[in-house]
Amino acid sequence: MASSFNKKYTAVDFTKVKLNDPFWAPRMEINRTVTLTHQYDELVKTGRIRSFDPEWMPEGENKGRHIFYDSDVAKWIEAASYSLATHPDPGLEKKIDETVEIMRKSQLPDGYLNSWYVNVEKGKQWTNLLENHELYCAGHLIEAAVAYYKATGKRNLLDMIIRYTDHIDSVFGPEPEKKHGYCGHEEIELALVKLYRVTGEKRYLKLSQYFVDERGKKPCYFDIEAEARGVKTSEFYNKNDYEYCQAHLPVREQTRAVGHAVRAMYLYSAMADLAGELGDESLLNACNKIWQNLIYQRMYITGGIGSTHKNEGFSDDYDLPNETAYAETCANIGLVFWNHRLLQLDCDSKYADVMERALYNGVISGVSLDGKSFFYPNPLASRGDYERSEWFGCACCPPNIARLIASIGQYIYSHSECEAVVHLYAQGEGQMNVCSRNLKIKQTTNYPWEGRVKIELELDGPAEFGIRLRIPGWCRTAEIQVNNSAIDIASIMDKGYAVIKREWQSGDVIALNFPMPVERMYSHPNVRENFNCVAIQRGPVVYCIEEIDNPSGVWKMALPGNSQFSTEHKADLLGGVTVVTAEALAASDEGWEMKLYSTEPPKMVPAKLTAVPYCVWANRGKGAMRVWIPKI
Amino acid sequence: MASSFNKKYTAVDFTKVKLNDPFWAPRMEINRTVTLTHQYDELVKTGRIRSFDPEWMPEGENKGRHIFYDSDVAKWIEAASYSLATHPDPGLEKKIDETVEIMRKSQLPDGYLNSWYVNVEKGKQWTNLLENHELYCAGHLIEAAVAYYKATGKRNLLDMIIRYTDHIDSVFGPEPEKKHGYCGHEEIELALVKLYRVTGEKRYLKLSQYFVDERGKKPCYFDIEAEARGVKTSEFYNKNDYEYCQAHLPVREQTRAVGHAVRAMYLYSAMADLAGELGDESLLNACNKIWQNLIYQRMYITGGIGSTHKNEGFSDDYDLPNETAYAETCANIGLVFWNHRLLQLDCDSKYADVMERALYNGVISGVSLDGKSFFYPNPLASRGDYERSEWFGCACCPPNIARLIASIGQYIYSHSECEAVVHLYAQGEGQMNVCSRNLKIKQTTNYPWEGRVKIELELDGPAEFGIRLRIPGWCRTAEIQVNNSAIDIASIMDKGYAVIKREWQSGDVIALNFPMPVERMYSHPNVRENFNCVAIQRGPVVYCIEEIDNPSGVWKMALPGNSQFSTEHKADLLGGVTVVTAEALAASDEGWEMKLYSTEPPKMVPAKLTAVPYCVWANRGKGAMRVWIPKI
Repeated sequence: MASSFNKKYTAVDFTKVKLNDPFWAPRMEINRTVTLTHQYDELVKTGRIRSFDPEWMPEGENKGRHIFYDSDVAKWIEAASYSLATHPDPGLEKKIDETVEIMRKSQLPDGYLNSWYVNVEKGKQWTNLLENHELYCAGHLIEAAVAYYKATGKRNLLDMIIRYTDHIDSVFGPEPEKKHGYCGHEEIELALVKLYRVTGEKRYLKLSQYFVDERGKKPCYFDIEAEARGVKTSEFYNKNDYEYCQAHLPVREQTRAVGHAVRAMYLYSAMADLAGELGDESLLNACNKIWQNLIYQRMYITGGIGSTHKNEGFSDDYDLPNETAYAETCANIGLVFWNHRLLQLDCDSKYADVMERALYNGVISGVSLDGKSFFYPNPLASRGDYERSEWFGCACCPPNIARLIASIGQYIYSHSECEAVVHLYAQGEGQMNVCSRNLKIKQTTNYPWEGRVKIELELDGPAEFGIRLRIPGWCRTAEIQVNNSAIDIASIMDKGYAVIKREWQSGDVIALNFPMPVERMYSHPNVRENFNCVAIQRGPVVYCIEEIDNPSGVWKMALPGNSQFSTEHKADLLGGVTVVTAEALAASDEGWEMKLYSTEPPKMVPAKLTAVPYCVWANRGKGAMRVWIPKI
Repeated sequence: MASSFNKKYTAVDFTKVKLNDPFWAPRMEINRTVTLTHQYDELVKTGRIRSFDPEWMPEGENKGRHIFYDSDVAKWIEAASYSLATHPDPGLEKKIDETVEIMRKSQLPDGYLNSWYVNVEKGKQWTNLLENHELYCAGHLIEAAVAYYKATGKRNLLDMIIRYTDHIDSVFGPEPEKKHGYCGHEEIELALVKLYRVTGEKRYLKLSQYFVDERGKKPCYFDIEAEARGVKTSEFYNKNDYEYCQAHLPVREQTRAVGHAVRAMYLYSAMADLAGELGDESLLNACNKIWQNLIYQRMYITGGIGSTHKNEGFSDDYDLPNETAYAETCANIGLVFWNHRLLQLDCDSKYADVMERALYNGVISGVSLDGKSFFYPNPLASRGDYERSEWFGCACCPPNIARLIASIGQYIYSHSECEAVVHLYAQGEGQMNVCSRNLKIKQTTNYPWEGRVKIELELDGPAEFGIRLRIPGWCRTAEIQVNNSAIDIASIMDKGYAVIKREWQSGDVIALNFPMPVERMYSHPNVRENFNCVAIQRGPVVYCIEEIDNPSGVWKMALPGNSQFSTEHKADLLGGVTVVTAEALAASDEGWEMKLYSTEPPKMVPAKLTAVPYCVWANRGKGAMRVWIPKI
């Protein structure tokens, strides 16, 4: 591990990546043209922006405010900034600037900035880090400020937030006179690393490190602050022994993915960031132990994570109920964040496989094709009454998916001094610097619907370097040609990537072929909900059956083991998807009038099974759905 | 329907029935010697008896009291009375008498008696019928009083409760000056019929009829009383449109089993009682419509009913989740109450089949073999963390199962002027009067473990009459001999009963044979949770597989369609049960290290499946369990 840990890659920024593929490009367009406006309107309508204005004092509970409203506004600014970075839009920029000026009204002279504590619980700052999301909101403000500054060069938000961060830095830290706490909802840790990267100010990196290192130490700060408020730590937290917020143990002693899944992902992402920035192998080792537990025991096939509503997070190993799956959109996005960071530290395709699985399935399912409604949980089965919502009281997911989509380009390529890396395949191009050469990688492909990828290189001069091409984990028979000559892949594989090192020059063409048969997927036998069931996967895309396509009833169908799959790409269906069909069997009601139990099994009759990508389910009205299908 | 409705039967009282069978007799003995004492101790310990004493005023919330405590005490008195009726016990009688005297302390001069309203919410009687269980508690007090009077002839409790009932009768009724309400939790309706039967006072019958007839009329009384209190009816009730307490429609217009399952069963039982007492066919018709919905669409194979925790009751047709099944012990007992009443009105074996299914499975599962712990919900699958509890804050189930077991004898026989009816088979004897003769029916059988039943008759003189013998719905090849001569059953069947009409005399022997092969049971294809699964049933007994007997893991096993069952009676296991075994297959973990999903299915390896009766599960420590087993 040590050797690969030293070899760091840098993700190619989304501003250097253009996509015109059939999957992401339409989503980005809808995100930019519809979703961002829709969400801004919701922020305005629900008072989330006005919350920052002390003069806005509506009647009613909490003066119209909520402890985590700031984060919703911040995440939207971040998403809008990513959009601005690739699609300048003075109108959108004006909305952000106006919002920044309203936010400024909640900044105190010492730099402190929080719409809740400045306007509702005045004077009670930093007294309930466990429950009140104060540093969490700060973290999202930091991410927003960094994003807006990078997109526009404007320092209005950045300077305001630097003042706030400096204030936070004066309050928290190892010095005896400071508070030795950290947030109940992780987020600021990874945000501080971003702020450090953009400002070069090491204090922010140190503060992030402090928050991460302090977490889980005994006596627990959450008990100390509760005592100071004269209360007991809530029963909820006691029962969970702080696993809920990953504060049950120092982070380096943690070995399982536990508690609230979004909090977990944000913490683990910060751990990966710090591991890279500080060369701290102990943090990477902890990440890897937790990763193994999460990926081999606690992740849905859709890349959804956090199986239970109870704690919005993890339950037990192999406890992956389908219908009641939580698999919160934010958590699934967090899984992408974390694996993307790990991939820069250790270019192992196992991380990219997870990232790809989540992106094409349990992440993008979080938003409707029209960009106006969102899933909070992403279940793998539905009785038919579950739909996306236009907004939520706790609205973390909508702007999270918006910022992910707006910056999706950054997940595709990495580079190091003498290597270019292709993690994901999607038509478009990416620009990076390798061996002091400007390299443009141009992909021509219909991925994820087809597995052929043509890569053309543009270079401002020949150079010898490596191109590291991910062989997707789902592919068993990859083929590569360079300038029409076949490559022996086996001999050049390194951690799931084919590494082609040679002198490259402009016009070189790499042809990849990842055949995409429809695959029957099976679960570990410990996953009781999927026993005797199959899921359908083709390439990176996990399928489901929806009632609208399967009038026999999705709960009555079974897939025979010898049934052949057919595929057909339907350009006019669900934004253009490849549909999978198979001859299946469906239980008939015949003979079951006035009978609920019988010694005779239901008659199974032929039925055509039609499966569509999971990520686009529930885009055609209400209806039942399932991913795991009984086999027969 | 009209013709059969006129033909009424009377259940043979449990005091006329003796059991020495292997199934019920040991349960009755434990109930009498252990459970009743255990529950009395809990009643004392938790303040439920002292609640009636105005001088007992502990510190803390609600002065140590609860709105439904009275019903727990009453149900225990009822259970203890049934025990006294067959096993006189001066010590137990003294406990009841002492309890009655404490209860008397909460009776007001006008007869009103309720520990909550007399000692906590003084002066607020009858202001929240919807939520506060006031008439429900009164109903249980009435049932207790009737039972204690019938068991001992003592009028101490009866007279006290008659005063209370007369007070209730002065408060509620159709007269303009009275309140036109009814209870949110049905119970008093059936209790008033019992009081009418023991006192002959028609006012009680009329009051019961009033409560039943008034239910569901518009405008709804619950809205009226809420308005009088200056509140809106709770959101919970509005959302459910009063289905929760079966007040969404006048009872005769109801066609589906809805809402809180215990409330539903108590209402439907009262409807059946009133149908019989008043010859009101419209009530019986309503019962039958609801019955069809419940039995053909909403009942677990165990006779458990009310599938969801959300409303402790019914959800949608065919929505019968196993692991999260509520199937409250009280509801399952209520199903027995209702079907037993219907059986007296219309001697159709479909009612007895339901009664038997519930009794041998989802009812008796409610109590541990040692008689000291109880299930509230009775799920059909468990991940292994669910166990019986010694008591509950809401302790309706423990005394309910105690009173059911103490009076189990009454479910076995009925009689009419010229007919004797055997509904259930269990070794022992029952005495009844038929055609002015004293008839004793003596059953010799090892039921439910064996299907052979020898019935011997004792008569104080020969007489011609019919003996109506239920052919269990689970039996497909019944045989009957009378004095060693085979009977052609088909020619004498009437609604699931074989009716043998002839001149009977002492010493006549009827030999019944109900072969009990192990059967694979299947669910209606609309029950999505049981798709492609089988349950094991033998005779009336539904089986389950428990982890302790199936080390391969109950979630990993599948039963091949061609696998043969074996049975063995194990006298020393779980109080003596017949165990079912079969060759099955279990998914192996082999090859699944560091893997959660795969294109290769888990290897299925031979495994012995061992099933035990569902009703005795969770008597050997914690462990996983399931009733429905995947077929392969």
